Amino acid sequence: MSNRDVLIGIDLGGSAIKAGLVTREGKVSKFRRYELAGGRGEKEVVRFLKKVMEDLSTMAVRDNRRILASGIGSAGIIDMEKGVIVTSPNFSGWKNVPLRDLLKDSIDFPLYLDNDANSAAYGEKWVGAGKLVRSMICLTMGTGIGGGIILDGDVWHGDHGMGGEIGHITVNPEGPKCLCGNTGCLEVYASATGMVRNARELIKKGEQSLLTPLSGGDISRISGKMIYKAAVDGDRVSLTVLNEAGKYLGITMANLMNLLNPSMIVLTGEVTGSWEFFMPVAKKEVKKRAFPAIVKRTKMVRGKLPDRAGVIGAAGLALKSLET
Amino acid sequence: MSNRDVLIGIDLGGSAIKAGLVTREGKVSKFRRYELAGGRGEKEVVRFLKKVMEDLSTMAVRDNRRILASGIGSAGIIDMEKGVIVTSPNFSGWKNVPLRDLLKDSIDFPLYLDNDANSAAYGEKWVGAGKLVRSMICLTMGTGIGGGIILDGDVWHGDHGMGGEIGHITVNPEGPKCLCGNTGCLEVYASATGMVRNARELIKKGEQSLLTPLSGGDISRISGKMIYKAAVDGDRVSLTVLNEAGKYLGITMANLMNLLNPSMIVLTGEVTGSWEFFMPVAKKEVKKRAFPAIVKRTKMVRGKLPDRAGVIGAAGLALKSLET
Repeated sequence: MSNRDVLIGIDLGGSAIKAGLVTREGKVSKFRRYELAGGRGEKEVVRFLKKVMEDLSTMAVRDNRRILASGIGSAGIIDMEKGVIVTSPNFSGWKNVPLRDLLKDSIDFPLYLDNDANSAAYGEKWVGAGKLVRSMICLTMGTGIGGGIILDGDVWHGDHGMGGEIGHITVNPEGPKCLCGNTGCLEVYASATGMVRNARELIKKGEQSLLTPLSGGDISRISGKMIYKAAVDGDRVSLTVLNEAGKYLGITMANLMNLLNPSMIVLTGEVTGSWEFFMPVAKKEVKKRAFPAIVKRTKMVRGKLPDRAGVIGAAGLALKSLET
Repeated sequence: MSNRDVLIGIDLGGSAIKAGLVTREGKVSKFRRYELAGGRGEKEVVRFLKKVMEDLSTMAVRDNRRILASGIGSAGIIDMEKGVIVTSPNFSGWKNVPLRDLLKDSIDFPLYLDNDANSAAYGEKWVGAGKLVRSMICLTMGTGIGGGIILDGDVWHGDHGMGGEIGHITVNPEGPKCLCGNTGCLEVYASATGMVRNARELIKKGEQSLLTPLSGGDISRISGKMIYKAAVDGDRVSLTVLNEAGKYLGITMANLMNLLNPSMIVLTGEVTGSWEFFMPVAKKEVKKRAFPAIVKRTKMVRGKLPDRAGVIGAAGLALKSLET
């Protein structure tokens, strides 16, 4: 062990790769964001990841640092033991891509692969909002909704590495169709994509909304940020959509509490920008539904590592994998 | 360690105490059922438990066995560390009853206290349906619905010992009121009490049903068993109620799978007598809602230790508490 040691953490997203050098204490010493401009084919992404690793290795050498290991967090179903991306919503057509094997010739340190939401959750546990708690659950609320479950300090992966799919908990059995095939998943209501779709539906039904001018009259261009902006100005459609997101998020959090009794629920991702609108509704719902003795003991907070939780967590998981 | 060693396991129910001597291998060598006829006051129950312990100690001596420890599984919120029953639905008015302290003078072995559903789950894991799996979730479907979560072989209690409340997961946000204060909990649909109430409601609304003659014309006397009987004879009210139980049980199991990815879900308790009616519906719902890759890997089975899972599990947890 030496303070020259450093880890590479990579957050492999659908349109960008975030990467950094992270110390053993979870501090980011370098951080880069690369746009995935060259396409999302398997070969392109692997080539790109090699370049990212090279960049970071060069930075490490320059800083007189030694790379201990690298961690990659990717959306999708991951076979951690084999280092394989089984399927990923970010990369259509990818099936059983043996990422670790494909990268191993170009690196001389171990590579750890995990799900992106698990990585973000572990980042928040390691050095973020959940630093002082034993167990916490993290929801990453962006395009979709990812989940990471930390029990007694470790990510709970499930018996086959597929657990933590909090976005695909049924919160309303008769709700609208989700991309996963189910109906009434949390993701349908509380992801940016879900909220945008729900706002569009209301406008199509004839509701007046500030979102129409905000999107330049083309409602296919409505974004999560526009919904927030319009809500600030009192737009009813936006407030309805955020209200519904809060309600179903609250139901989900209540279920998680009664089931797993964690000390904390951490919310991260772009949707949390609208915290002031959905969170009071969500908290009310939690109070209504979870056991009072549990509610009293569970904090509901925003993540403390915006944009970086995934990078830090992937590095932390890689470090942990060395130790076990 | 000797094969003379034995454990006392006790399942403290609202109307009866089941108790037994259990070997280190999880075999029941003696089993007794005592009706709690003398009242459910704190003092009466403690006196009764002392008598049960005495009985079992005498049996152990007679068999030349040595009692290593005793485990008690009780409904309610349990403070395991302190050995206190915080509150219990079985014993109204009990609040922070320090059961371990109250019993300690009359026994000369350690006493372990846990929730009854956790005990049953651990029994099924130790020597029952889940013997060969890493992680499983057990639902005890009786008067109420209890839950026990086994992760990597151990009961998951949560950070404050209050986890596993699967009966109080919201499955239908707009559903009827539950005793816990929430609306649309699983318990409202799939417990014996819930199904009986739902059947009565349908009859009150004017539905013809075989349950009316079966209950001697007094529908307040309808029981879970009557619903099963009537369903066998094609009674529409009973089939509707069982169908609904299956649907919401299926939603719950799908949620548990997507969230925790266990290898098995074990169902026990009197309601499982109607397995043939609710389970096909539940399985269909699971298929519709959980990730196919997960469904494929998760067994849904009946418990293998009817009536004894709680006793065996309480003994097993007591044994485990000695080892750690």
